[in-house]
Amino acid sequence: MKVAIYGYGNLGRGVEDSISRNQDMELVAVFTRRDPASITIATPDVKVVSTDEILSWKGKIDILFLCGGSATDLPEMTPALAEHFNVVDSYDNHSVIPNHLAAVDAAARKGGTTALISCGWDPGMFSLNRLYAACLLPQGETYTFWGRGVSQGHSDAIRRVKGVVDARQYTVPVEEAMERVRSGECPKFTTRDKHLRECYVVAEEGADLERIRQDIVTMPAYFEPYNTTVHFITMEEMHRDHSALPHGGSVIRTGRSGKDGQNDQVIEYRLTLDSNPEFTGSALVAFGRAVYRMAARGDVGCKTVLDVAPVDLAVASREELVKDLL
Amino acid sequence: MKVAIYGYGNLGRGVEDSISRNQDMELVAVFTRRDPASITIATPDVKVVSTDEILSWKGKIDILFLCGGSATDLPEMTPALAEHFNVVDSYDNHSVIPNHLAAVDAAARKGGTTALISCGWDPGMFSLNRLYAACLLPQGETYTFWGRGVSQGHSDAIRRVKGVVDARQYTVPVEEAMERVRSGECPKFTTRDKHLRECYVVAEEGADLERIRQDIVTMPAYFEPYNTTVHFITMEEMHRDHSALPHGGSVIRTGRSGKDGQNDQVIEYRLTLDSNPEFTGSALVAFGRAVYRMAARGDVGCKTVLDVAPVDLAVASREELVKDLL
Repeated sequence: MKVAIYGYGNLGRGVEDSISRNQDMELVAVFTRRDPASITIATPDVKVVSTDEILSWKGKIDILFLCGGSATDLPEMTPALAEHFNVVDSYDNHSVIPNHLAAVDAAARKGGTTALISCGWDPGMFSLNRLYAACLLPQGETYTFWGRGVSQGHSDAIRRVKGVVDARQYTVPVEEAMERVRSGECPKFTTRDKHLRECYVVAEEGADLERIRQDIVTMPAYFEPYNTTVHFITMEEMHRDHSALPHGGSVIRTGRSGKDGQNDQVIEYRLTLDSNPEFTGSALVAFGRAVYRMAARGDVGCKTVLDVAPVDLAVASREELVKDLL
Repeated sequence: MKVAIYGYGNLGRGVEDSISRNQDMELVAVFTRRDPASITIATPDVKVVSTDEILSWKGKIDILFLCGGSATDLPEMTPALAEHFNVVDSYDNHSVIPNHLAAVDAAARKGGTTALISCGWDPGMFSLNRLYAACLLPQGETYTFWGRGVSQGHSDAIRRVKGVVDARQYTVPVEEAMERVRSGECPKFTTRDKHLRECYVVAEEGADLERIRQDIVTMPAYFEPYNTTVHFITMEEMHRDHSALPHGGSVIRTGRSGKDGQNDQVIEYRLTLDSNPEFTGSALVAFGRAVYRMAARGDVGCKTVLDVAPVDLAVASREELVKDLL
């Protein structure tokens, strides 16, 4: 399977790491909008190519992993490329996914290709677990908790505050809230009940720290609905203690069974990730394998993780999976 | 969707409970090997029918849930009935699943039906999670822990000991072992390291309790490889404290990512079930819906949970699932 990466940021590097761990895939090119000469990639002897040249690779790539951002890149990038390549993206703007799916589906059908969007862990593995759990326990409630982990969006929001040089924001699930859910209770939570926001900020010299703190904790949508703590640190501390990108979280569904609904049934799917982009990359790669197989069967159009039969994710044959895993 | 239950023990009742919670399914009959007049079922106005009459129901049942035991019932029952009905079973003899699959597949193809075997939680949801996790983290180890919960097989084994009137055996995961796995370590465990076995026994009056204890803890395969505790209780205590059938467990995979494999990525799927048979029943019912849809598409033969695209499990349309869950 010849695969390529389009966009070489954190996610692109995560996909590259995962490809190196899957022996049935060969990385044939990394595409970048930057000057290819300025990019050094981790895999030896693989070409770095300008995105301008992408169409000349048509027919030479079985799966193209799209590693742009959801805000502005993917809404244009995925439909444009899905017409020419089998693609996988990590589009994560939940409320607009149906529109994105429609645009990518039209492009894929036009080109006779197979695409899979919104892959990763949320959307992605968490979505799958929300679906399985809801189907098994139709009477119940599903709760998603995120963290402890770095939110890039919230870190970026802090960096836009006047006087801030650098920032890292950790989303932290409230442990007591998770325990209540795990106990089989179906509590009603406010936003504030479920997550805390913990901010580490490097300020400009002489900046008014209390004003920065106020600007952060009162920021609508991002921080105002949460209990937020702000810690001012040095650039050295930022590099030393906050350069990793851990994340994770839990999807928990509690449902009832029994004549009077007296039995609590609790399903939890939990991720504890040292590297968010490397895990997201590994999800794109596994589902890329399924896209390749669906494309080979002529199953064109835009798919999601919910459409993929699990056997299609594995290198091993169905017979081996039945024997070893079932 | 017209559905029926074949075999009315704990699992049959669990399936019945789940059917009542899924509005797109109508229970049309419960089949029993016992005298139908001796059986009272939970659902009003549904016929209880002798298994002798099953073939006269051909064409009137969309999905038949087979609720026999794995030891002797299902190896014969599932192939025999798969020729005439779309069936779902919970065959759980892991090492012989490939043979069972082959026999059921031949029968289903002969009859032009769709079957799904080995549904439930292990095999079943745990198998699915072993597969997803292994595909996402190809370099790593998967651990399955069971419990705390009642093992019917081990309880039965104790009941066969001379002088035992009744028994209940709880499988208990060793919390320290689970914590080591969750921390990202990849420990090598012996059988004894992972699980304890806790036995509650009602003995005949005047029986030699120490001899019973010895007979239990030295029983090969069942108890000898484990740290086993035996508690003698009265029949009243048995009924009062041990009449429920809780179970559960965790599938945990720890994998590595990053250039030097320095990042630990941990996936855990955990079940905490007040009722094992009701949860198993709910899995059979959800996958029964998928079987119905596969059958409607002409996708005949024997399937497993690994073959089912998750969208096929849900009552809701794909559009709704993409909008609400993805």
